[in-house]
Amino acid sequence: MSTRMQTLTKQEIDKIHQASMAILSRRGIVFNDAECVDIFKKNGIRTEGKTVFPTEEQIMKALASAPEAFTVKALNPDKNVRVGGPDFALLPGYGSPFITEPGGAQRESLFSDYEKLVKLTATSQPLNMNGFLMVEPGDCDTRVAHLDMFLCGLLGCDKPLMGAPLSRRAARDCVELLAVAYGGHDQLMDNPATISLCNSLSPLQFSEEMASSIVELARGGQAVCVAALIMTGSSGPITIPGVLALQNAEALTGLTLAQLVRPGTPVIYGSTSSAMDLKSGALAIGAPELSIFISATAQMARYYKLPSRSGGGLCDAMLTDAQAGAESALALFNAINSGINFILHTAGILGGYISMSFEKFILDEEVAAMIIRMIRPMEINDETLDVDSIVRVGPGGHYLTEKKTFKTCRKEIYQTSLMNRSNYDHWTAAGSKNLEQAAAEQVAVRLAAYSAPDFSPGLKKDLLKKAVALAGGAPLKMA
Amino acid sequence: MSTRMQTLTKQEIDKIHQASMAILSRRGIVFNDAECVDIFKKNGIRTEGKTVFPTEEQIMKALASAPEAFTVKALNPDKNVRVGGPDFALLPGYGSPFITEPGGAQRESLFSDYEKLVKLTATSQPLNMNGFLMVEPGDCDTRVAHLDMFLCGLLGCDKPLMGAPLSRRAARDCVELLAVAYGGHDQLMDNPATISLCNSLSPLQFSEEMASSIVELARGGQAVCVAALIMTGSSGPITIPGVLALQNAEALTGLTLAQLVRPGTPVIYGSTSSAMDLKSGALAIGAPELSIFISATAQMARYYKLPSRSGGGLCDAMLTDAQAGAESALALFNAINSGINFILHTAGILGGYISMSFEKFILDEEVAAMIIRMIRPMEINDETLDVDSIVRVGPGGHYLTEKKTFKTCRKEIYQTSLMNRSNYDHWTAAGSKNLEQAAAEQVAVRLAAYSAPDFSPGLKKDLLKKAVALAGGAPLKMA
Repeated sequence: MSTRMQTLTKQEIDKIHQASMAILSRRGIVFNDAECVDIFKKNGIRTEGKTVFPTEEQIMKALASAPEAFTVKALNPDKNVRVGGPDFALLPGYGSPFITEPGGAQRESLFSDYEKLVKLTATSQPLNMNGFLMVEPGDCDTRVAHLDMFLCGLLGCDKPLMGAPLSRRAARDCVELLAVAYGGHDQLMDNPATISLCNSLSPLQFSEEMASSIVELARGGQAVCVAALIMTGSSGPITIPGVLALQNAEALTGLTLAQLVRPGTPVIYGSTSSAMDLKSGALAIGAPELSIFISATAQMARYYKLPSRSGGGLCDAMLTDAQAGAESALALFNAINSGINFILHTAGILGGYISMSFEKFILDEEVAAMIIRMIRPMEINDETLDVDSIVRVGPGGHYLTEKKTFKTCRKEIYQTSLMNRSNYDHWTAAGSKNLEQAAAEQVAVRLAAYSAPDFSPGLKKDLLKKAVALAGGAPLKMA
Repeated sequence: MSTRMQTLTKQEIDKIHQASMAILSRRGIVFNDAECVDIFKKNGIRTEGKTVFPTEEQIMKALASAPEAFTVKALNPDKNVRVGGPDFALLPGYGSPFITEPGGAQRESLFSDYEKLVKLTATSQPLNMNGFLMVEPGDCDTRVAHLDMFLCGLLGCDKPLMGAPLSRRAARDCVELLAVAYGGHDQLMDNPATISLCNSLSPLQFSEEMASSIVELARGGQAVCVAALIMTGSSGPITIPGVLALQNAEALTGLTLAQLVRPGTPVIYGSTSSAMDLKSGALAIGAPELSIFISATAQMARYYKLPSRSGGGLCDAMLTDAQAGAESALALFNAINSGINFILHTAGILGGYISMSFEKFILDEEVAAMIIRMIRPMEINDETLDVDSIVRVGPGGHYLTEKKTFKTCRKEIYQTSLMNRSNYDHWTAAGSKNLEQAAAEQVAVRLAAYSAPDFSPGLKKDLLKKAVALAGGAPLKMA
């Protein structure tokens, strides 16, 4: 279809690719992890201290083993998710230290908030994957918070979830728990059970935590998403093409590492770059430039025949107001419409990642469901065109009592679960609620309706036992 | 670019076209205006009573004289607007009887509200056309409200505006006023000075008012947009393809009429069809189906080589809340991105057309400006890719103090005028305002900053004199 979003030509993408290759050959990328540098070196890639200099040939050879699409499996196999090509995963927000209450007040997030977010994700219609680090619970022991969150997600929701790439140890721990859940490490090698988010540290670096997580997760058979979050004019050039070249160099090198560790590792090419706000110097994720990056990233990933990742319902709004609605809808629409395959932050994010909101979560779910309806293709055939009915009903008639209307309406027409469609009198009679207030009511209903997945008591016991062993004496909320 | 919105194939569009032709040949379209039926008849088109039955050949022959794009001229020629192909017009809302105050209270709209909307449109950055009937002022004499609104728009804003297709008389009156403004009827024949909205009365009818307006406006050299507003399952079939076939039959026949009156009349192919809400039976314009219709309508218009029309910031929300933000942003993005050329209702609409809100107007303007930034293509070249800077700054560096950052940032990065990007402390210190409250402050600033266009006193006097004459003694607000 004709679209006014920019279509990058093959020549333009080639040019970005060549710029990335020039960056890698002239300056390279720093890996703050000795084993990673070693892996590059052993594979014949030039290194100088912590810096690696992969060539175009080495990168393209490594990426040749990466699948174009893959399945991430769930403990409930009915909920396996395909990622790549036409298929995409929608996930909750990630990494927020705070919770925003209705009206906008922010407070530190707690493990009980994490549990609520798992319940909302488990009962979510549009979200087909569970997250990780949906908030950073302030009341968990930082040494084992990854175990609490991962176990809470694994036992509380039977959709596939995200791994714990917070450190080499956390990545390993999550693989160990998965081995218990799936009956051994071997069972994790056919299809991954998690996808983990391993961001570069722009410009041109990977932190020890992220780099070593890539290695551990690839070894454990888990999928790895490598993404850059570059702020134009701050951690990257002020020009969008410059940022595309820089993030491409970073992502390709991280993905190459995963392939060197285990050829065939399912990987995702990602970006969550956006604009720096010129007034505050802060990251702006409600910015229109975000959607440009999303669209370009989807196109770059297709060029390399890789699944793609971007953010979803992103915004800079401080509460679930009209700004949150507009910015998040634009970003999520662009992510889905551009063909992104792994859409993190689909639900809940406020204030430039600073907080999660349960009410925003409910809003974003409805928006996601609406967009999914928008992209459902229609069949154009004699039955759907329905010329006979149109001729029969004729000028000035109506279709309300047509048999077909009754028969087809629920399939054809999306029904809102949150958005108001009542008229003014009904709306005022029902209390003149704005969307944030209506969503707050739904949060309570959803949490009350939740029931935990029906896993065997044995599995729960084994997982808990393993988590306690991995915790090494540190206190677990889940214990 | 790859998009997940449906791309209709040539075969599918052919099939919709053929369905429309079958509807026209088997059932025809009713024109509730004797002159219109006569025009069809004189051009060899079969008629029966009020029903006309144009053939495919007759329609395609008539449409062959319609331009693919045209310029609508403004009293300030710097503000002429091109409509068609890559170019598009953004206009304020249309037809609302009410005003929504901050918080959601609805009240009858007044002529003073109309004046405010003209001022907001005149000072709008993204809106490049002025509207008509932006609200239906309850305190105008209904016999001459069209004169008040048209004159208010013409004198208060120097952008091109919409005509007054409320009746044969109103359409004629607006042409008469334009003749005064532009120095005679002949001056209106090169390029139109207005575009008017002439909707069909679905299914398969045109009202006397709309049909006769098409005739008068085409005669007066003015552009005509013919659009259908069909509700799935109510005024049209429950299936989206069925509605596409029905609205296509209606639009093509109305556009044919304009070409028969004056070949070469600039016309726009439109639709504002959407879903019927299954619970209330009411029109839902925040519905995802609206975006499907927008996308399909843009594709149908291109098939006929005609400019296209859809709605813009449409929503069913009762106030400027998160629902308003999300629904309106989705609809407006889809209108712009699909390639629509005439986007009515870009700013201000709430509650399924029932009301205009000044605060929503400000929100929609910002969203429109953001979308315009999103679709601005980037140039991919050595300068924008900026490999040298990336190599120089290197790993762990930053770009904040780069010369290029200072030089380029204002051009490259969109700056918000309404959306909050400050952090929690700054936001609370500034009063914890939600977007509706922030927008209300901007409404006041904008109205205070307005100054009327610098038209000659003679022009104003002549226009007013003509309006008084056309009013025939009925009281004019503008007098």
